[in-house]
Amino acid sequence: MAESKVRIAYEPLKEFAKEVFLRAGMPSEDAEIEAATLIWANLRGVDSHGVLRIPWYVENIDKGVMNPKPNIQVVKETPATLLIDADRALGPVVTTLTMKRVMAKAKEVGIGWGLIRNHTHQGAIGYYPLMAAEKDMAGIVIACNPPNMVPYGARVAGVQNSPIAIAVPTKRYRSLILDMATSVVAAGKIWLAVDKGESIPLGWALDKDGNPTTDPRKYATLLPVGGPKGLRLGTYV
Amino acid sequence: MAESKVRIAYEPLKEFAKEVFLRAGMPSEDAEIEAATLIWANLRGVDSHGVLRIPWYVENIDKGVMNPKPNIQVVKETPATLLIDADRALGPVVTTLTMKRVMAKAKEVGIGWGLIRNHTHQGAIGYYPLMAAEKDMAGIVIACNPPNMVPYGARVAGVQNSPIAIAVPTKRYRSLILDMATSVVAAGKIWLAVDKGESIPLGWALDKDGNPTTDPRKYATLLPVGGPKGLRLGTYV
Repeated sequence: MAESKVRIAYEPLKEFAKEVFLRAGMPSEDAEIEAATLIWANLRGVDSHGVLRIPWYVENIDKGVMNPKPNIQVVKETPATLLIDADRALGPVVTTLTMKRVMAKAKEVGIGWGLIRNHTHQGAIGYYPLMAAEKDMAGIVIACNPPNMVPYGARVAGVQNSPIAIAVPTKRYRSLILDMATSVVAAGKIWLAVDKGESIPLGWALDKDGNPTTDPRKYATLLPVGGPKGLRLGTYV
Repeated sequence: MAESKVRIAYEPLKEFAKEVFLRAGMPSEDAEIEAATLIWANLRGVDSHGVLRIPWYVENIDKGVMNPKPNIQVVKETPATLLIDADRALGPVVTTLTMKRVMAKAKEVGIGWGLIRNHTHQGAIGYYPLMAAEKDMAGIVIACNPPNMVPYGARVAGVQNSPIAIAVPTKRYRSLILDMATSVVAAGKIWLAVDKGESIPLGWALDKDGNPTTDPRKYATLLPVGGPKGLRLGTYV
């Protein structure tokens, strides 16, 4: 299938995305955050984490997996740390809120660390440490997810491909940013291949029987980047 | 060359190592820490970071690169953070001291973060987060080093293979620990191959002309684990 030639301007796409989330039951401010983070991913060229995911988010809201009107609560707090219960909020909604509170702590005591529980999909997590870098702080964000990655040499998922994002401000140029899954590729890259009707390289994924596959529609589990190193990073972070 | 059949007991080896560092000019307490961390690596089976390194440490003390009697100072401090000037102390000496102070901060405010400047080689960095795990805290330690790793597709060193170590306490079993360089292997693994007279696999290192090599004596630069992911992890952490 040929690459789409359709080009969509930033603002109408963002308005459309926001409208979808509004109709799915989210408050206006939260729908705005969700739309902004998705479009941010598209504008960075990370289409795997952009508006491509909208139908999947809506499906998860409809199923009750994601909560469009969460009761987000601070469970525990110290001068430098924060434990937040997300009540299954969409990732961007609770994570931008947590980043803001954690950054306020960092201003006070030098560093802030937040833990979010009962969260759902985080989106392109590079967005959050960049919030810190734009305020002249370094940011690190790590997300956990259900097992979707194969322990080295195994055939079924046993660990998660927990993504890691780090942003560091610079004096004169744009902030440096790392945003990576601990698998060879994020699952979104495989969905993107399905979307484009393309095959995937050997070494990205296994099928349901634990065999290597180049067919993105047969994807069942991800392979860790760098073998045991990606595996352990994904397990421990 | 055949594997050595000589077995050495823990205590005499530690005493020998301590004696070497004492004679190199270190105070008794510091020589003890240095010996303990080296032997710890050997006992974990990480011979690349064990007593194998003693001649190299002594050489660096003799050259004035490492300072056996450093004037370690706190440069800056907040309730949760610490900036320490190591005055070119040996890594274990200043890092165990920093970990202790940072762990005290974590007890007070929930998290502690220390930065060490003017440090030298850190040793097997898994030792330090494990200090935290043994006190029922999670620990992360990252070290920077001079460029020794090849940007993906390049021929000479441009970034560092900054190692990452994470330790997490468990309720019933030994602490989980990750201790890895962001190169395919740490340089010590290549020195170990030289020591054993073995060749190294393709993909570990390049020679001085930027060509892949299986001869550990020709090693000039390391290759990043997982290509661009190991490269960026090494650059940003």
